[in-house]
Amino acid sequence: MKVMKADDIKKFSSEKMQKCGLFETDHLFCDLYCFEPGQTQKVHTHDNSEKVYYVLEGKGTFTIGDESRELSMGETTIAPKGAVHGVENTSDARLVVLTIMTPRP
Amino acid sequence: MKVMKADDIKKFSSEKMQKCGLFETDHLFCDLYCFEPGQTQKVHTHDNSEKVYYVLEGKGTFTIGDESRELSMGETTIAPKGAVHGVENTSDARLVVLTIMTPRP
Repeated sequence: MKVMKADDIKKFSSEKMQKCGLFETDHLFCDLYCFEPGQTQKVHTHDNSEKVYYVLEGKGTFTIGDESRELSMGETTIAPKGAVHGVENTSDARLVVLTIMTPRP
Repeated sequence: MKVMKADDIKKFSSEKMQKCGLFETDHLFCDLYCFEPGQTQKVHTHDNSEKVYYVLEGKGTFTIGDESRELSMGETTIAPKGAVHGVENTSDARLVVLTIMTPRP
């Protein structure tokens, strides 16, 4: 039984957003995305994969399709397959996001 | 863009654990499981689906296969396909768990 603690896994870099792996299986990737203020994951697309975002810490601006919204701790959204999606930490504090992508691209 | 807030969605019942839907797609179910003290989701199995658990609030005892461990807020685990899995709120406070199951059973 594999147990992970988000506070032990999360890490930050002044260079760029950090993607910290939690679980990787045949079906999914589960990661923490860790952003310093101003860092981004540029908008991109997965033709057949969906991505769930859940904000664990801080807040940031999430883009899905042609819409952008600020999400704070405790808020969640989903990027449908084929939809452009990205994240920018537009706040002045760190942002930590739990992500699950499935199926694997 | 569908945004959900866990605090708005979670609900509890003295009768049994509440499963509160966040997202449902062709690929996945994403739910909040909300347990009063003493409530359980009995161990069960999905032949081909995996389930990620992330503890958002409180603590409880998670069983996967032949192992049981107490997980607290900020801890996460995964039930591989075919593995028995279940949750019991063995604490004296409420337990809220984010779950993603994929692929859909």
